[in-house]
Amino acid sequence: MATEGKVIRCRAAVAWEAGKPLVMEEVEVAPPKSGEVRLKIAATGICHTDSYTLSGSDPEGVFPVVLGHEGAGIVESIGEGVTKFQKGDTVIPLYIPQCAAGQLSQLHLYLTLQAQSDGTTRFSCKGKSLFHFMGCSTFSEYTVVAEISLAKVDHMAPLDKVCLLGCGITTGYGAAVNTAKVEAGSTCAVFGLGALGLAAIMGCQAAGAARIIGVDLNPDKFKTAQEFGATEVVNPKDHSRPIQEVLVEMTDGGVDYSFECVGNVAIMRAALEACHKGWGTSVIIGVAAAGQEISTRPFQLVTGRTWKGTAFGGYKSVESVPKLVEEYMKKKLKVDEFVTHTLPFEKITEGFDLMHAGKCIRVVLQF
Amino acid sequence: MATEGKVIRCRAAVAWEAGKPLVMEEVEVAPPKSGEVRLKIAATGICHTDSYTLSGSDPEGVFPVVLGHEGAGIVESIGEGVTKFQKGDTVIPLYIPQCAAGQLSQLHLYLTLQAQSDGTTRFSCKGKSLFHFMGCSTFSEYTVVAEISLAKVDHMAPLDKVCLLGCGITTGYGAAVNTAKVEAGSTCAVFGLGALGLAAIMGCQAAGAARIIGVDLNPDKFKTAQEFGATEVVNPKDHSRPIQEVLVEMTDGGVDYSFECVGNVAIMRAALEACHKGWGTSVIIGVAAAGQEISTRPFQLVTGRTWKGTAFGGYKSVESVPKLVEEYMKKKLKVDEFVTHTLPFEKITEGFDLMHAGKCIRVVLQF
Ligand SMILES: NC(=O)c1ccc[n+]([C@@H]2O[C@H](COP(=O)([O-])OP(=O)(O)OC[C@H]3O[C@@H](n4cnc5c(N)ncnc54)[C@H](O)[C@@H]3O)[C@@H](O)[C@H]2O)c1
Ligand SMILES: NC(=O)c1ccc[n+]([C@@H]2O[C@H](COP(=O)([O-])OP(=O)(O)OC[C@H]3O[C@@H](n4cnc5c(N)ncnc54)[C@H](O)[C@@H]3O)[C@@H](O)[C@H]2O)c1
Ligand SMILES: [Zn+2]
Ligand SMILES: [Zn+2]
Repeated sequence: MATEGKVIRCRAAVAWEAGKPLVMEEVEVAPPKSGEVRLKIAATGICHTDSYTLSGSDPEGVFPVVLGHEGAGIVESIGEGVTKFQKGDTVIPLYIPQCAAGQLSQLHLYLTLQAQSDGTTRFSCKGKSLFHFMGCSTFSEYTVVAEISLAKVDHMAPLDKVCLLGCGITTGYGAAVNTAKVEAGSTCAVFGLGALGLAAIMGCQAAGAARIIGVDLNPDKFKTAQEFGATEVVNPKDHSRPIQEVLVEMTDGGVDYSFECVGNVAIMRAALEACHKGWGTSVIIGVAAAGQEISTRPFQLVTGRTWKGTAFGGYKSVESVPKLVEEYMKKKLKVDEFVTHTLPFEKITEGFDLMHAGKCIRVVLQF
Repeated sequence: MATEGKVIRCRAAVAWEAGKPLVMEEVEVAPPKSGEVRLKIAATGICHTDSYTLSGSDPEGVFPVVLGHEGAGIVESIGEGVTKFQKGDTVIPLYIPQCAAGQLSQLHLYLTLQAQSDGTTRFSCKGKSLFHFMGCSTFSEYTVVAEISLAKVDHMAPLDKVCLLGCGITTGYGAAVNTAKVEAGSTCAVFGLGALGLAAIMGCQAAGAARIIGVDLNPDKFKTAQEFGATEVVNPKDHSRPIQEVLVEMTDGGVDYSFECVGNVAIMRAALEACHKGWGTSVIIGVAAAGQEISTRPFQLVTGRTWKGTAFGGYKSVESVPKLVEEYMKKKLKVDEFVTHTLPFEKITEGFDLMHAGKCIRVVLQF
């Protein structure tokens, strides 16, 4: 039965209220309007940003909303004027769209994209309209996204793996290869060995780093980090001194590049201060809680360190995600190794629990 | 009378104690040891760093000391093994030496260089030895510096002008052309329109910036800033909103490059936050009081801004200072315009007063 042009009724995990569990509901997904695309989601990852918004900690969070932003699927129908996609295309939604003027100029706008460009939403449930999330809303069997927020990828790609290229892997990998521009032979430190940290390690390794030091409080993370390319691992709990001092000593003055993949402002400072004076660059990947601030002595910068951050690994999303999928298909990029758990969509709450317990790298939900 | 190999008795402004005025004394300057050069200072500028150390605010300051680090002079004699200099050479002492391994790896060491490499000092007065300052100590008719802390420059250069290339002008100019790498057509903001800010403006202009916005609380600074190349000037006192918001609005989203030339941690934050998301770079030039910290929301960096600092404008000192002198001699670099007051050396305290009153760009003392 053709669904095109009609409202689709399907399952979605609805976040009705901040701080309350997600509820599996039957929702209505309206047809795509001009410049929009409706897709059937095949798989989605769960990321800390989903959990952060669900918790109510994000001051910009709005409810009720359909969360999720690490998905992959198939185009079901296209709105008026859409030329780059057609029914049946294999796609990955992008929470940072790529517009002609350069994606990042509109970053803030889209990071908080909670409706479509006409200000209305395509989701409703029990007579209430539901907000979109980061322009993606992948915790639903069907979703509607703007054409500029979608990448068309190889139709042979396994969607329950490449969905992770919609956020975590791309961000960590790009932080190393694009934002920091890690050089061959350099010494790197990666703080936090979750999905983002492992992806950053993979980026450092691809760039030819000579030493990659993984740092985590949880010793269970070390084995995988070494499999991903960490040449050394350090647990701050094993040292009485601040971790930046430990690293400066281990590396004869500091690392060339450091990456904060935790989301803790104290670690952001430690990562900067672990860099070598004169040239060290530290990149913030983790997202800190609202209202928290990073700080350091200005002398840290005046003596030649650089402090940066990354969103989506500095990639131009529409162009880059298909290329990353190709690299994965050619086995140049690890993706399968990030998927430690695959669950059916209805077990989404179990997926969140696994993430909070630190027991997974990434949980992928299948529809 | 040949002075070579002998102790020279000459005038120096001695800082006997923190917080006390300088005292003009007759001091003894020992001959240069191995790897050292003794020079006769012809002229010296006065910089805030001298005043900061004299005030006792610098926790690393030691007394009694001969301050001054913005000087120029003539080689009087050389120590054993010195090959790059000979008697009569025209030279500028460098507070950041250039060593084979790259000057900055040793930055911290030398920024606080208070003695010669054997741990002893070449100055004494009334039976007490006096510390060196930043490896330079230009507030003395004669001084001894390490060979790696000295640049040989064109012997035709007017020393009462090019002495300023030993710190302020080089730092501000280099912050724009080396550290920020300002691009043609870009929009820049310079916070603080003293010597460092004017030099940064000059660097932005040389790099082809399309808009250079000067920011200062003191409206007396605006005319000179415009003569140096500022295309617009803004006084935060004329606005009730934070200055970063004013600049973001003036520039349709923020500037491409900003420079903090005040030494105030709140302005350092404003300068970063005035940058455009996605690509803006802010460079800290000012030196904040000891113990103060810079801070911002990490989101400022995660959305694509870069925070840097500069010491000596990112130049390799031994190689670069002679080239800057050449550029000045070819009238490609303004230096004369920075010298608003020339005083005899014995009026050094008057020079400090002029600097504190904000009435000068730079005061130069002549010997
Ligand atoms: N910048 C972006 O675009 C972007 C995109 C996605 C995720 N993120 C953020 O990246 C961060 C990491 O995400 P993830 O999915 O890898 O999380 P994760 O929970 O899988 O990994 C975090 C790791 O940090 C470790 N850790 C916690 N405290 C630590 C400390 N004090 N020192 C060292 N290690 C510590 C934990 O043990 C864990 O292994 C989160 O803040 C997330 O929100 C940012
Ligand atoms: N990084 C380095 O290597 C280096 C080298 C030399 C000097 N410095 C530092 O650079 C800074 C500037 O030096 P300078 O010689 O140009 O000083 P200056 O006193 O000549 O100029 C500072 C200017 O800032 C203005 N100002 C003060 N508060 C302000 C505010 N809140 N907003 C805007 N403007 C404000 C003042 O009116 C003045 O015009 C100092 O902190 C100095 O220590 C750094
Ligand atoms: Zn995410
Ligand atoms: Zn100075």
